[in-house]
Amino acid sequence: MEIRPQDTESSWKRTAYSIIFESDTPAGRAFDIALLLAIVLSVVAVMLESVHSIDAEYGYYLRIVEWIFTGLFALEYLIRLAVVRRPLAYALSLLGIIDFLAIVPTLFTLVLAGSRYLLVIRTLRLLRVFRIFKLGQFVGQGEFIVTALKASRYKILVFLTAVFTLTIVVGTLMYVIEGGQHGFTSIPKSIYWAIVTVTTVGYGDISPVTVLGQALASVLMIMGYAIIAVPTGIVSAQMAMPASPAPPVPVYKQVVCHVCQAGDHRPDAEYCWRCGEKL
Amino acid sequence: MEIRPQDTESSWKRTAYSIIFESDTPAGRAFDIALLLAIVLSVVAVMLESVHSIDAEYGYYLRIVEWIFTGLFALEYLIRLAVVRRPLAYALSLLGIIDFLAIVPTLFTLVLAGSRYLLVIRTLRLLRVFRIFKLGQFVGQGEFIVTALKASRYKILVFLTAVFTLTIVVGTLMYVIEGGQHGFTSIPKSIYWAIVTVTTVGYGDISPVTVLGQALASVLMIMGYAIIAVPTGIVSAQMAMPASPAPPVPVYKQVVCHVCQAGDHRPDAEYCWRCGEKL
Amino acid sequence: MEIRPQDTESSWKRTAYSIIFESDTPAGRAFDIALLLAIVLSVVAVMLESVHSIDAEYGYYLRIVEWIFTGLFALEYLIRLAVVRRPLAYALSLLGIIDFLAIVPTLFTLVLAGSRYLLVIRTLRLLRVFRIFKLGQFVGQGEFIVTALKASRYKILVFLTAVFTLTIVVGTLMYVIEGGQHGFTSIPKSIYWAIVTVTTVGYGDISPVTVLGQALASVLMIMGYAIIAVPTGIVSAQMAMPASPAPPVPVYKQVVCHVCQAGDHRPDAEYCWRCGEKL
Amino acid sequence: MEIRPQDTESSWKRTAYSIIFESDTPAGRAFDIALLLAIVLSVVAVMLESVHSIDAEYGYYLRIVEWIFTGLFALEYLIRLAVVRRPLAYALSLLGIIDFLAIVPTLFTLVLAGSRYLLVIRTLRLLRVFRIFKLGQFVGQGEFIVTALKASRYKILVFLTAVFTLTIVVGTLMYVIEGGQHGFTSIPKSIYWAIVTVTTVGYGDISPVTVLGQALASVLMIMGYAIIAVPTGIVSAQMAMPASPAPPVPVYKQVVCHVCQAGDHRPDAEYCWRCGEKL
Repeated sequence: MEIRPQDTESSWKRTAYSIIFESDTPAGRAFDIALLLAIVLSVVAVMLESVHSIDAEYGYYLRIVEWIFTGLFALEYLIRLAVVRRPLAYALSLLGIIDFLAIVPTLFTLVLAGSRYLLVIRTLRLLRVFRIFKLGQFVGQGEFIVTALKASRYKILVFLTAVFTLTIVVGTLMYVIEGGQHGFTSIPKSIYWAIVTVTTVGYGDISPVTVLGQALASVLMIMGYAIIAVPTGIVSAQMAMPASPAPPVPVYKQVVCHVCQAGDHRPDAEYCWRCGEKL
Repeated sequence: MEIRPQDTESSWKRTAYSIIFESDTPAGRAFDIALLLAIVLSVVAVMLESVHSIDAEYGYYLRIVEWIFTGLFALEYLIRLAVVRRPLAYALSLLGIIDFLAIVPTLFTLVLAGSRYLLVIRTLRLLRVFRIFKLGQFVGQGEFIVTALKASRYKILVFLTAVFTLTIVVGTLMYVIEGGQHGFTSIPKSIYWAIVTVTTVGYGDISPVTVLGQALASVLMIMGYAIIAVPTGIVSAQMAMPASPAPPVPVYKQVVCHVCQAGDHRPDAEYCWRCGEKL
Repeated sequence: MEIRPQDTESSWKRTAYSIIFESDTPAGRAFDIALLLAIVLSVVAVMLESVHSIDAEYGYYLRIVEWIFTGLFALEYLIRLAVVRRPLAYALSLLGIIDFLAIVPTLFTLVLAGSRYLLVIRTLRLLRVFRIFKLGQFVGQGEFIVTALKASRYKILVFLTAVFTLTIVVGTLMYVIEGGQHGFTSIPKSIYWAIVTVTTVGYGDISPVTVLGQALASVLMIMGYAIIAVPTGIVSAQMAMPASPAPPVPVYKQVVCHVCQAGDHRPDAEYCWRCGEKL
Repeated sequence: MEIRPQDTESSWKRTAYSIIFESDTPAGRAFDIALLLAIVLSVVAVMLESVHSIDAEYGYYLRIVEWIFTGLFALEYLIRLAVVRRPLAYALSLLGIIDFLAIVPTLFTLVLAGSRYLLVIRTLRLLRVFRIFKLGQFVGQGEFIVTALKASRYKILVFLTAVFTLTIVVGTLMYVIEGGQHGFTSIPKSIYWAIVTVTTVGYGDISPVTVLGQALASVLMIMGYAIIAVPTGIVSAQMAMPASPAPPVPVYKQVVCHVCQAGDHRPDAEYCWRCGEKL
């Protein structure tokens, strides 16, 4: 992102930018961790508020906490807008929109009662957690996983399309077999059941009752059992693959110097590396 | 398939053939994508019709959509029949039969009321999706998965037979242990339960209640847990295997020098490497 | 097994032995497949008998089929006893006992009414299926799986012990946390639940209700999710391993003969392999 | 642990130490196995006591067994304290605390009725099982698994954080979509459901009922299906990795000959390999 402030700009902006947007200075790292903590705490507060018994007793305090965090996040958002070189680019970026949506719902509750639940959007700010991963040990490891998944993306896409086609066909068959009963009340619902089954989740909220239905379900389950090997195999093979071709191992010349008996010369050596004698 | 029209045939047939049956021209590709879209939309219409609340309100329009798609597919089917060189071969091929079955059920509804649900056969036309995969990036990836699965087919077959034998034995034992109660009302039903369990789907529509039954179920589950490693291992190992065969290992000449008894000569050696004697 | 009949014995015994016990002659192979079919059919008959509606209508015929198969298996058992060199060794071997138990229950039904269900032991004869695998393509593949599992047996044993310890500790904790309610009525039952959970089967016949219980269950599930990688990794790595270490690639001497310009000499060559000149 | 008794100490202490704390003498091994058996039996007794029907009939005897094992474990604990060189270090170590907690609850039952259930802490003594693994075959295998998991710990941590973020976001969305009904009564409960789903456990105690909820659940399940490949791939790749580090790649000396400008000399070269000049 080339939206950092120019060198000619005021010094505090540059300092604020490096603290808020970068994480390679001690201050920047401290800010990142404090922000992560604030996000987690504000999300926990929203969570607790959704529990009826806790809301009944501590709802007042939770709402105060909510307003404090909203204030802090609003302040942070305004500073971000102030210090970036191109505020509009930031405001329209994914993280910028999430940052904005993390503030708005609390303000809306002044007008509209039920809008508090929109605060759950704030949980998306947890995506910033992944920026913290850039610190220390995690860079390589996170990148390794992402690289392996990216390299396998076409294989996984083909695989998911095959699975999806399978679930549509099997789901429709089950709708016909079970005759629109036992929970298989429509084709989309039957496809939902097929997905629940082939992924081995198996809630049991819908399950076949007829003999033919149970037979088809058994086939689907055993197929799912064999099929689950495919994505695992794809990613395993990708991860086991060496990241880059190994550097060529230099081969030494299998000749011994006739003066000093030194071996292991370069393949194209004409003089001994130890005594300088012509080989 | 050698059922393409001959060069001596009329030009429009050849053009229609290349558009409908081939996908390497821009027009052919556009047709494929339009067909894919039509299949998806017609399947979605059938799905929506199976939902009671939607059918009650929009059933009339959905039925019109159904007739339009049936008309289009019928037209497509007739053109396919007209342009291929050997219409019978196409009509009796798997895709030809599916294409035919995608039209018939709608016509049947004029005579027989309940036959509309046969339209679900149309979902099988989604198999054509895989032909679209032939475009671009997906060829190699799809082939890679199919090749890995094909290479593992005997291993997977042996594995599935072992799993199936296991489920029959365990299912029968559970029928005896649970005494025909708690859902284990017959041996086939108990085998269905064993498959649900060993594949870790676990609906919970049938689950053991007696102590001995739960103990046996625990053993089956832990076995299933260890067993699931086998197909994954098979496919992973297959996929991790290098695509090309290893470079040929240089083989020494199996001849011994008659003078110094030295072996391990180059395959094309004419003189002994140790004493210089003619081999 | 050195229990085959001696050469001095009567010829029919040797023929019968090779047909019944061996599978490398056409007759032996035909017998194996016929036996497999008979076992499958007799097991299917027992299965169908356990279904109440089928038993009510066709029970009489199924019982006749049962007696026919029992007669055939008894005959086979007697011939096996007659032709093997050491009948007692066969009778006390695992397969011999299973063969015997496959006949007995039907005879018992003459005396004791409910003993028919013991016939389910006959399903164990399906273990003979694996002998059929010795035919053709399947040998190597089946052996490959068994070898990989055998090589991993200590690792899998250590892993299963760890999983078992985990389920005991977590199961006991859940018994205390849920307070003997919500299905967690005893420690063994709670351990059963822990096994159902960690193997991701998840029947839902028992599931935590308290907040603390659901939190512990979440931890167990995520651990189980990470843990399932272990047996898969073990078997995958084992299967991906080359069967034997690669033969050492001979390295040639990087010296060119000064007479004929030939290269690629043995590392310890003193004379050119092409012209015999001293290197 | 450098807490073994000094050589100047009494001989019985050294003998007792080697028996109780070490397992490389026959006596030490016998003690380990006896202890393992005692732990298993005492845990089984606690388990059986938690089953109401067994407790009603054999509760009296089980309580006697409990007291005997408590006495034995107390004796063992005291001897351990007596023979180690630094008793406090042992008493405050993890295993020391567990050993202590395995005795206390029984004593507490004299004062407080319900404290017997604290005996479940004794199950943690099963952790000693892993010390037994140090015997024979298991050392290498157990270490192999632990090493592979340790080497993958950062990858697994990144992966678990991603899974956890996903479950929070999806769980919160489900709470809003299902409108606090159908079991999704609070955000923590919805997150619990998301964990149950993404790990493919699928109890079915909570499952989506609305169309939008089932659609989101389907996406989560298929994502979980593809995601499960990641930890498996990590561990598989780790385990397939060759045990020994690759041989060191020979590094050339970073010096250029001042006469002929040749580089890539051997690290210990004293003369240029091309012109023979002193480097």
